[in-house]
Parts: sequence; C-alpha cells; structure tokens
Amino acid sequence: MIMTSSLSFQPVLERIAEEIEHTPGRGRPADYIPALAARDPRSFGMAVAELDGTVYGVGEWREPFSAQSVTKVFTLALDLAREGDELWEHVGREPSGNPFNSLVQLEYESGIPRNPFINAGALVVTDRLQTRTGDAAGTLLEFLRDESGNPEVDFDAEVAASEAAHGDRNAALAHFMASYGNIDNAVPLLLDQYFRQCSIRASCADLALATAFLARHGVRADGSRLLSRSQAKQVNAVMLTCGTYDAAGDFAYRVGLPGKSGVGGGIVAVVPGRCTLCVWSPGLDDRGNSVAGVAALDRFTTLTGLSVF
Amino acid sequence: MIMTSSLSFQPVLERIAEEIEHTPGRGRPADYIPALAARDPRSFGMAVAELDGTVYGVGEWREPFSAQSVTKVFTLALDLAREGDELWEHVGREPSGNPFNSLVQLEYESGIPRNPFINAGALVVTDRLQTRTGDAAGTLLEFLRDESGNPEVDFDAEVAASEAAHGDRNAALAHFMASYGNIDNAVPLLLDQYFRQCSIRASCADLALATAFLARHGVRADGSRLLSRSQAKQVNAVMLTCGTYDAAGDFAYRVGLPGKSGVGGGIVAVVPGRCTLCVWSPGLDDRGNSVAGVAALDRFTTLTGLSVF
Amino acid sequence: MIMTSSLSFQPVLERIAEEIEHTPGRGRPADYIPALAARDPRSFGMAVAELDGTVYGVGEWREPFSAQSVTKVFTLALDLAREGDELWEHVGREPSGNPFNSLVQLEYESGIPRNPFINAGALVVTDRLQTRTGDAAGTLLEFLRDESGNPEVDFDAEVAASEAAHGDRNAALAHFMASYGNIDNAVPLLLDQYFRQCSIRASCADLALATAFLARHGVRADGSRLLSRSQAKQVNAVMLTCGTYDAAGDFAYRVGLPGKSGVGGGIVAVVPGRCTLCVWSPGLDDRGNSVAGVAALDRFTTLTGLSVF
Amino acid sequence: MIMTSSLSFQPVLERIAEEIEHTPGRGRPADYIPALAARDPRSFGMAVAELDGTVYGVGEWREPFSAQSVTKVFTLALDLAREGDELWEHVGREPSGNPFNSLVQLEYESGIPRNPFINAGALVVTDRLQTRTGDAAGTLLEFLRDESGNPEVDFDAEVAASEAAHGDRNAALAHFMASYGNIDNAVPLLLDQYFRQCSIRASCADLALATAFLARHGVRADGSRLLSRSQAKQVNAVMLTCGTYDAAGDFAYRVGLPGKSGVGGGIVAVVPGRCTLCVWSPGLDDRGNSVAGVAALDRFTTLTGLSVF
Repeated sequence: MIMTSSLSFQPVLERIAEEIEHTPGRGRPADYIPALAARDPRSFGMAVAELDGTVYGVGEWREPFSAQSVTKVFTLALDLAREGDELWEHVGREPSGNPFNSLVQLEYESGIPRNPFINAGALVVTDRLQTRTGDAAGTLLEFLRDESGNPEVDFDAEVAASEAAHGDRNAALAHFMASYGNIDNAVPLLLDQYFRQCSIRASCADLALATAFLARHGVRADGSRLLSRSQAKQVNAVMLTCGTYDAAGDFAYRVGLPGKSGVGGGIVAVVPGRCTLCVWSPGLDDRGNSVAGVAALDRFTTLTGLSVF
Repeated sequence: MIMTSSLSFQPVLERIAEEIEHTPGRGRPADYIPALAARDPRSFGMAVAELDGTVYGVGEWREPFSAQSVTKVFTLALDLAREGDELWEHVGREPSGNPFNSLVQLEYESGIPRNPFINAGALVVTDRLQTRTGDAAGTLLEFLRDESGNPEVDFDAEVAASEAAHGDRNAALAHFMASYGNIDNAVPLLLDQYFRQCSIRASCADLALATAFLARHGVRADGSRLLSRSQAKQVNAVMLTCGTYDAAGDFAYRVGLPGKSGVGGGIVAVVPGRCTLCVWSPGLDDRGNSVAGVAALDRFTTLTGLSVF
Repeated sequence: MIMTSSLSFQPVLERIAEEIEHTPGRGRPADYIPALAARDPRSFGMAVAELDGTVYGVGEWREPFSAQSVTKVFTLALDLAREGDELWEHVGREPSGNPFNSLVQLEYESGIPRNPFINAGALVVTDRLQTRTGDAAGTLLEFLRDESGNPEVDFDAEVAASEAAHGDRNAALAHFMASYGNIDNAVPLLLDQYFRQCSIRASCADLALATAFLARHGVRADGSRLLSRSQAKQVNAVMLTCGTYDAAGDFAYRVGLPGKSGVGGGIVAVVPGRCTLCVWSPGLDDRGNSVAGVAALDRFTTLTGLSVF
Repeated sequence: MIMTSSLSFQPVLERIAEEIEHTPGRGRPADYIPALAARDPRSFGMAVAELDGTVYGVGEWREPFSAQSVTKVFTLALDLAREGDELWEHVGREPSGNPFNSLVQLEYESGIPRNPFINAGALVVTDRLQTRTGDAAGTLLEFLRDESGNPEVDFDAEVAASEAAHGDRNAALAHFMASYGNIDNAVPLLLDQYFRQCSIRASCADLALATAFLARHGVRADGSRLLSRSQAKQVNAVMLTCGTYDAAGDFAYRVGLPGKSGVGGGIVAVVPGRCTLCVWSPGLDDRGNSVAGVAALDRFTTLTGLSVF
C-alpha cells in the first residue's frame, strides 16, 4: 500500500495505534530523572505534519512530554543557520559507533566530538549557539513556540534541576573538551543552558510542526528561510546517520527516515518534501530509544512506502 | 536544476566530467597492491544506469578496474537472499566509528563485526555465502556477469595474489572471529575466497548495471526477484550508514545517497526507484574513498536534486 | 662495587653528579605551568637519607622545587594509615598501561581508577583523606614538615593557581568518577585540595627524609608508627609497579627500586631497610619523568648494587 | 619470624601446606584444554631451591604438571642471552593494563607488544629465538632438563594438540603482528613452536631449580653464565611488573617477589641472591593465577620476611 498525496494520514495513524495497543513489551522509562521515571510506559501518541501545517494525530498526540535530546536537532539547525560550515571544525558528522556518552572516542579525537547528537557534540553546539546569541536555551524555546504556534511550550524547571543533579557526566565531558580548547563558555553556564534545553516540554503535534522546516528544505512556517536547501539536506543526513544513539544503523534499516530520539520517549522523523512525524511513548530499549516509537515509525514506512530508500 | 524523468543523464555527466577535469588534487592510489598503485590518479569514468538498463557514461566508463570492496554489496545481497535475517545474528548493521580495519570494536563486541562492509563483517558474509554455495567467489562472479551482461567481468589473479601476500591483517581478523565461533570455514579457504572476490575487474558500466537491482527494489535484470522490497531497502540503508568506511556521515552529508566504495577507486550509488551510478578514479583520500569519485557524486546530486534527503 | 654499610654515600653521589654534569640531553621542563617552565633543565640535586636521619647530598640538594606528583606517595600513606584496606575498594593497585591522564580505562572499569598514582587515583585518595581529616592538603603539609624537620616546606600559591587554570582535565576526571559515585566531596573543593598538594615546594633533602618511613617499614622520624610493616611493603610495591606513569616497567628494569616521580622533575626512591633517595632535575622525558633523575638513580643502583632485584 | 640463613625452609613449607589444606576455595582449573581441566583443584605442591641446588619440598612437589606460561621466563632469558637489548625494539617491558589476550593495546602500539609475558609478546620472543636457534622449543626443553637435572621433563603432545585446536586467538595475534612486520617466521611454524613450549611438563622441583639462575644473578647450575648480572636483574624486574597477567600489581602488593604464573596452576618466584620457589595448584582465579599458589607465596613472604620490599 503506497500512499498517494491525496490521502489523509489519519487512517494510517489509527491503524498503527491499534497495532501498538496490542503489542506486548514497551521497555522502561528513563529512571535517572524522577519526572521521566513516573511516566506510564503504555502512553502513546503520534502526529504527522504536512508541509502546509496540516497535522494528523492519534493517541496522546497533544500531551506534553520531555523533549530531551529531540531538541538537539533544533539547536543544531539554529547554530548552523548562524555559523555555517565553521561549526564542522568543532564537531564531526560521523556516527559514533559507541554508547552515547562514551569518552573514549573523544579522547582519541582530541576533544572534537564525532557528531552533534551525542552529548559531547550537543554541548559543543549549545556552547557555540550561546556565544552567538547570549541565550541558547531562550533562542531554542522561541523557535519551538514560533514553529508550533503553541506558546505553552516551555522549560520544565523540575526536570532541569534533576538533570543538573545528575550532571557529573556531562560536566566531565564539558571540562574534558574545554581542556582541548573546544568550549568557549564557562562550564557551569554551559551546563545550565544545556539542561534547560533538554527540559523543554512539548507535544507530538508541537514537535512534528517544529521539525517541518526540514521537510520544507529549510523554510520555516512563516515562509522565511532558516537553512539553505543544502543545509537542510545535510541536517537530514546527520539525523539519519547519527540521530538514534548507537542504533542509527538499525533505525535506518527498519525505518529508513532521518530521525532523532530522546530519553523522554519522543522521536521526530522527516520525509523530505512530504511530511514530518513525531511519536511518543516513554518506554525505552537498552539503547535509549522508545520501543513503541520505533515500532510505530517502522509500521508507518511499511504501510505508506514513504522511506527514503 | 531539478531533473525531470524525461531528461537524459548524458549532459549532466559531461558537465561533471568537465568540472572534475579542472579540479586539482586527486589523492593517491592505494599503494599496497602493485596493480592498484600503478593506475593513473587522473583516470576518471562515470556511468548512470536507468531502471530499464539504459546506461549513460563519460570518460573511462568502459575501462575495467579493480572492484575491491564494492563487491561487498553484492556478496551481502547474495547471502541475504539465501539466508535472510539469520545473517544479522552474525554481523551487525551499525556504523563502526573506527578506521575500517580496527580490531578494537570486534573485541569489545565478542567477535560480531559491526557491519557487513568493514573487512571483518565482509569476511563473515563471505564465510556464510561460502557455506551456502560452496563457492562464494564463483557465485558472485556469475551474478556480476549476468547483471552487467558482460562475460568479460573476471577475477584478476595477480591482484588476488597481491592481496594474499598482504593478507596478515585479514588473517588476524578471521582467526580472531573464529576464536569466538563466528567463522564456519577453514581460515585459509575463506581468505582465498575473499581475496578472489576483491580482485574482480569490472567497469563503471558493469557495476552500475549490477547495482540496479537495488534501485529496482530487489528485482534483477531478468525480472526475477533477488531480494524482497524490504530487504532491498535494508541493503540501501546499510550502504548509507556504513558504505564508505569511516566517512559514511560525510558521504551522507555531501552526497546523500546509499553508496559503497572500494580502494580500487570505484564507488557505486543508488537512487532508489530511479537509477544507479558508478564512478571510478584511482586517487584516494585518507579514509580510502576516491577523491574525484566523491566529488563527482556530490556534483551529481547537487545538479539533479536526486538525493534521498 | 657493592657497598657495605660502613661506607658513606657521599662519594657515590659526587661521582654520579659528575657523570650527570657531562651527560648531554636533559629533556624539557613541563611547560603548562609557568613556574615549572622557568626552571633551568640543567639544575640537578640528589640526596640520600639513611634510616637514622643522616642525609648526604650533592648539587642543588637543598633547593626547593615543586614536588607535584611525588606528594601522591604521602597522601596515599596518610589515607591508608587512617582507612586501611577499605581504600582498595575505591582505587586499584594495577599498572595503568596507558598515558597517565587517560579516561579510557576509567570508563572501562566503572569509575574505579587503576592505581593511586595516576591522576584519577590520586583524586580519589585526596577525596577520601579530605573526608577523614577535613583538610587533606594541610594534613599532608604538616606531615612533610614533621618528617623533614623543615618548617619552610610550604604550598606555592602561584603554582596552585596555575594548576587550577589548567585544571579542566582533572575536573573532567573528578566529575566522571563522581558520576559513578566514587567521589564524596564537591568537585571544586576537591580540586582546590588537590592542586594545593601538588604545589608543595620542598628540597631533595626534605623529600628523602619524608620518604624514610617507607625504608623504616612504616615508622616515622619520631619513632611512632604510621603504617604497619605490611602496609609499608605494600606502598613500596605500588610505587614499583605504578610510580612512574607509563614507564614503571622501564624504571623497574633500569633502576630496580620503588620510586615516584613528579612533573616538577623530582623522583623519590626507596631501598627498603636501608635508605631513601630523592633526585631532582627539571628536564622531563616524553613520559613525564626527569631525564637526569632516572639516569642518576640508574647509576646509583649500578654503583651500589642496592637494587631490590 | 624473620629467617636467618642457617634455617631450613622445610618447616615453613610444611606450615604453609597445612594452612592451605584448611583453606576453602581453590578456584577452577583452566577448562579450554581437557588435560588441564581434568586436574584436581585441591592438588598442591611447593618447592624451594637454594642457590647451591638444595631443594625443599612439600605436597605434590615432584608431580609433573603443565608449565604453560611459566616457560615464558626461560624463553625470554634464552633469547636475551643471544640477542641482548635488540630484543627490546620488538617487545616492550611495560605492564599491559589489560586482560592478557587483548588486541587493543597491540593495535594502539603498532604491533609492538607491551611485554614478553602477554601472549603477543611471548610469540615475538619465541619467533626471535626460533630465528636464532632453528628450534626454539627444543632449545627451551634442553635448558630445562639441564637446569633441573631431570631428563624426564618433556613436551606433552596431547596438550600441544589441544592448544593448537584452540589456537585461533594466538593465530590472530601472530598474523596481526606479522602485518606490522614484527614476526619473522611463518605463522604456522611459529604457532607449532609456541604450543610445544607451553605444553612442557615439569614438577615444582624441576621449575624451582630451572629458575635458580635468576637468583644467582645470571649463573646457571653448571657455573656458566647465561645472563649478565644486569640482565638477570632486568628479567626479575619484568617478572615483578608483568609476570602475573593483569594481577601484577596485586601480586607485588601481596607477595612482593618477581614471579611468573601459568594457566596450568604453576607459579615460579625469585628471592634474588637467596632462593627460588615454585608452587602448583590447578585452581585459578578469574585473572588466570593459581588461587592456592598465590596464597602460599603470600604466606611464605610473610613468614620469612623474604619480600624484596
């Protein structure tokens, strides 16, 4: 069943939700942050946004959840829009081939993180956006509100505080890169900015809409251009090869779309030129990706034939 | 300039060839095999094969060269066609995040190579195809001749002998995986099969045609099905995330197509549902990919807009 | 020439000093701390302390220098005296087999440093001594003054400030171990204590005397016992296997004595039951050990036959 | 209780045997070789050889067992005697800081093994002795027979065959080093020589006597010199820092003597200038050292005070 453009995504979403409902095994929510651990692993929501802003949804698709690393896509785009290719002298764009927090490769490669989606790389991107804007987290929040049209997208102070309380590993990463001269701002300031970004609460609808500029080849909801066509393609490429921690190959294999996941259980994905998706379910697999989320996207590309491959 | 289907690829190829002609810097041919080292780094050929078998070409597109690791795509497909998903219990599909011969990750992951395109993974695939066919290299050669329609595609005994003479590292990999029980055949037999595959000589036209089953969603030139639609998509996904050694992220970023390179200077690439490409130029960058080859594919996707992103 | 106990060490020291004087090549002082970089690489001093407190010396043996990692021996002994074997649940006693700041092994072994003499291990020991005394650096300084009988042994505030200014890597190590629960105190407090210890200025005479408890099987200068006989032997064993960064094997091979070096160019060594030595020359080899210092100790054991082997 | 030279070691050995007899927990014999797996973990023997060839023994001290890696000490000495310091350009003398078969460090250090006692290093030493003698294993066997005075010391063909049948990892190591040009002989020949050496059967009495040249500062049983005084000291240093796999630090800490262990359950140790020891009990700890063997040596140094520290 290959979709034609005149069809609504609604029946597909409903079929997927029904299948997921009957699927046993949902993984476990992230347990290091109380607010995440408390979420019901059987929660499920999914939204598709078309290029014109039409949104289809199923399940808890309007329920806010903790976006966590899903925000790394937007921070990357916001810095790339300002800085251009100079960014790539400070962070690579190769898959990490290691669990997402590993310090090994960072040491081997002299403080240049492999890509913008491992924690070390996201810290570098945030550091650079902070230098360019004076308020990386605020810039990100404003962008998400604008694209989603939802002013209730906001930081979650409790989650940010939990992140900070478990922040030793990110502090280690930041100090380690600073020892190589690859961090501009003071580490405590950087961490505060980073943890606030991670804490942002938004719904599937919000995040599908906020991702749509990547399906529109760089153009924002208001018609202004954030990224060049080439840059938008490049962000999609980085998402496909690096967006799901150490499971990027498996995600490409099963889903076949550029995607970015977060430990809050959300995943955004892009069908270039066609639509964007966001799925949310808090139970994670052992690589940190939402179990039901990956399954739902797998079903979506199978049912619609909308893989990039 | 976005292509429409009625246009010929010929003018695009000619424009690319002209640009490449005027580009300084071609890298250096692989030097560990005399027959490769002797090739002129300024050689260049490129071919595009449409789904119906129409081939366009420019430069030395009919000149045979050493296919080397480009053959790993076909061996993977030939084994996957026979074995199905059981293969994935013996080799992963995640990017390696390390130079292509590294033993580190192999040790860390108990003898299961990260993907079928690093040498360790290709040895496993060859080992399994050997078990299933009794002649992995012969099976591969027959497939390439059939798909290209060119009976002159053949092994190069001199190159295979050179490979064997420098084969200690591959012998180490094979014995190491055997120590984990992940190799079925005797190591010397396996290496002979492996080096013969690598030695195959074919032209850009031959290899573009032989790759076309991946653009046809699994269907061979004669209309028979080698892979299911899902498997073809999966091979494309593995090519995109793992096909160009430790430069897969960069290749996805610049080219945005599933591709597989070899140290002979060849690269094949797939535009699913549309066409396949093969480019050849012997000069390599420090990650083992053809300098002019990557540049030509980069120009191709820019000029035609035929990226998957 | 094997020494008998009735001989003075003075002629041996003078002969060594003369040989060193005529030896070309002294290495380079550590350059990351201005106060260390400014030292003349041709400076040289050496002292031997007998069990009864008699000290022999040659060259600049009364000139204070920056003790740096030599202090790690004393911090280890001071904590071991208070804590006993429980310490070994928080730090190992195996050679690191890696450059002295490496994070790799630390990650591989879940935040437990390999031994007390790599930076990570010394941070753990300082952290534990801090918890037990409320002032690790002060405890160390008092001990060094008592054993050397020299009240002028002191912190060097300028050096401590330089260490702090280049402290990102140690901050990374401390936060990283904290993420595994292996650090008790707040990281900034710990680093302050650590850098002050490293900054201590003392002479060869001071440090030879301060090390003498290890040759006296645990007994301090005033006759009181700091360590049990067994513990003193154990500290000597750790010095021999881990005391000179990634050159412990080479040091054992050439010198054959338990020893501990610092990037200030000092090295202390122990002849159990007989005497202790301290040598100082600021020029370092590429593994961070004093070039003339190792050479002088090598000559000492050759001339006197006082190796443990 | 510190021994004086007039005392016999016999009462000490008997006391140790009695204590070991009543100690629960003996570890498990190596299981990858049937002949080793079949040994009773409660077997125990211990011998002390004085410089003049007097041997004291207790338990099964005349029972032959599989010497395995204990032979690496002798191969090292036999090659060092022929080759001198040039050997150290092909193998290091630093502790490995990794489990004994690891390939990681070998790759990191370009095919130069860290020390002669990890498998990779022992393969290099055997390779070099083979080049210099044409029969490394035969040279070793002759040496052991000469020093022990026991013509029944011999290869064990069954054990050598078992080693060969599980030899993939050593084959991987040898091929890997060959790829760096650090192996001279053909890999199959080298492995045959290596496995035959490992297979040698000898008793505690035999091995204590064969080790005695290291306590006699290089002089063999017949009064001829194998190693210079300096070389003998150096071999002792390498044993102390590298002789017990990844437990060298712990062995130095507990026992405080140069020692070399094997997976057959044997350990030899040296008290320079005084005596040598060999202890045997087949049950191993998780780092491959004999549980009762290490305990017995620990008791020996505690009871006699004969540690080098």
